[in-house]
Amino acid sequence: MPRTAFFVSDRTGLTSEMLGHTLLTQFEDVNFRRITLPFVDTREKALEAVEKIRQQAITDQCRPLVFCTMIDNDLRAIFQFEEGFTLNFFEAFIGPLEQELGRKSSHTVGKSHGIANFEEYKNRIDAVNFSLSHDDGVMPRDLAEADVILIGVSRSGKTPTCLYLALQFGIKAANYPLTPEDFGNHTLPKLLLPYRNKLFGLTIDPERLSQIRQERKPGSKYSSLENCQFETEEAAALMRHVGVPYLNTTTLSIEELATTIMHRTGLVRRVY
Amino acid sequence: MPRTAFFVSDRTGLTSEMLGHTLLTQFEDVNFRRITLPFVDTREKALEAVEKIRQQAITDQCRPLVFCTMIDNDLRAIFQFEEGFTLNFFEAFIGPLEQELGRKSSHTVGKSHGIANFEEYKNRIDAVNFSLSHDDGVMPRDLAEADVILIGVSRSGKTPTCLYLALQFGIKAANYPLTPEDFGNHTLPKLLLPYRNKLFGLTIDPERLSQIRQERKPGSKYSSLENCQFETEEAAALMRHVGVPYLNTTTLSIEELATTIMHRTGLVRRVY
Repeated sequence: MPRTAFFVSDRTGLTSEMLGHTLLTQFEDVNFRRITLPFVDTREKALEAVEKIRQQAITDQCRPLVFCTMIDNDLRAIFQFEEGFTLNFFEAFIGPLEQELGRKSSHTVGKSHGIANFEEYKNRIDAVNFSLSHDDGVMPRDLAEADVILIGVSRSGKTPTCLYLALQFGIKAANYPLTPEDFGNHTLPKLLLPYRNKLFGLTIDPERLSQIRQERKPGSKYSSLENCQFETEEAAALMRHVGVPYLNTTTLSIEELATTIMHRTGLVRRVY
Repeated sequence: MPRTAFFVSDRTGLTSEMLGHTLLTQFEDVNFRRITLPFVDTREKALEAVEKIRQQAITDQCRPLVFCTMIDNDLRAIFQFEEGFTLNFFEAFIGPLEQELGRKSSHTVGKSHGIANFEEYKNRIDAVNFSLSHDDGVMPRDLAEADVILIGVSRSGKTPTCLYLALQFGIKAANYPLTPEDFGNHTLPKLLLPYRNKLFGLTIDPERLSQIRQERKPGSKYSSLENCQFETEEAAALMRHVGVPYLNTTTLSIEELATTIMHRTGLVRRVY
């Protein structure tokens, strides 16, 4: 029987989900059912949410966990009830922070994931459009504009990582696929030579690569283990030879890839 | 003089950044300088991080805020020092949670943004590839596979929203652009008729739309306020007429758009 965890928020629920998820992953042997209740911004909706949690407590015969990021004190108080085990994010931290900063918080709902300003929003959309328009088809002048250029063989994880960098951090990430023509003499493709400092490589285990490619083109030379071995070895040799930093993507999530690239290149996020 | 806030983490820093950011946005009149210190997973790196914070305290003549999501007790203890004001997320919540669940947490580093399992990872990449390959060029059979189909005029926000839904939630979101050929008789394009229940509309204020389009095609009919007014009015009229739920994207962030669509359609995230 899974234990139910509710993520309750007056806005998107993203902070509440992340906080709760981070804590729940520390209890590996418990099976959690996760339910997000976003946009709970009135007394009526709060009472409705509490009722849902009460019903779940009856079904589960066990009180649900409630991860709560409500800002309003009165709404928050509604989630202090016997049938739920509530952890209040703002309650724990806003008081000490107010004291340290020597001022009251604004208690304003929905600040953290809203549009901060048009400039920041534009940066982000521009970065997304940049990544999209340069996915697997790079123009020389675009490389000059890029913050970082990911290189690697087809299906090594460049595209989702570029998109994540753009969407989450507002970073213009270009994507240059290494193909068999680029191998052999362990030198960078000519197009990339002026942008050496922007390059970051992604490698991948050949077994995993073959597995991923088989799903797209089953039985092809492209997806054969032998070819994947050749391509990954050549790509890694090239990166080592020319001194491009690289990461093996096989066991890393997109978040880990993106944040490691930011960390190693010294790039700073443009969007929070 | 801005107040410095450090986000310290043993892994990606994403949780620390989000929790810290959520708290800081409650202090609108303070100017914060944000520095993320990710992958602090050894005693040496922790001492190095503390030294950085100490130096910043001297520069600022004011102690920095330190938002800390370290799991390891010993590493965490290093961040309790006079020259920094540290808020510890795990310290606050993991104890009460252990008591409620009646078991010890695993105190394992880096669970929350790692690859949970290959299946979940594959869902996510599949969703990203789905959104990418159907961006502004929908095939009938793909619509059947989509979890949700966003409709709206060009530049109303469909593409970044689709990508966010795919990357963050593992949702297959297709994208159908409404063009002037679709207007006039307030009926859905034929292609979409079988998938009415999957449709979700994005609208946008004509002034903002014109501003966005001008950046791409300055001086064109496409970006003129008059044309933007025509397209947005016709699109909204069509959505109202056929009963497709819709959202005005003008003042909403991508996070707000994506979570609102999830909430209203009842879709459940496939990836945490």
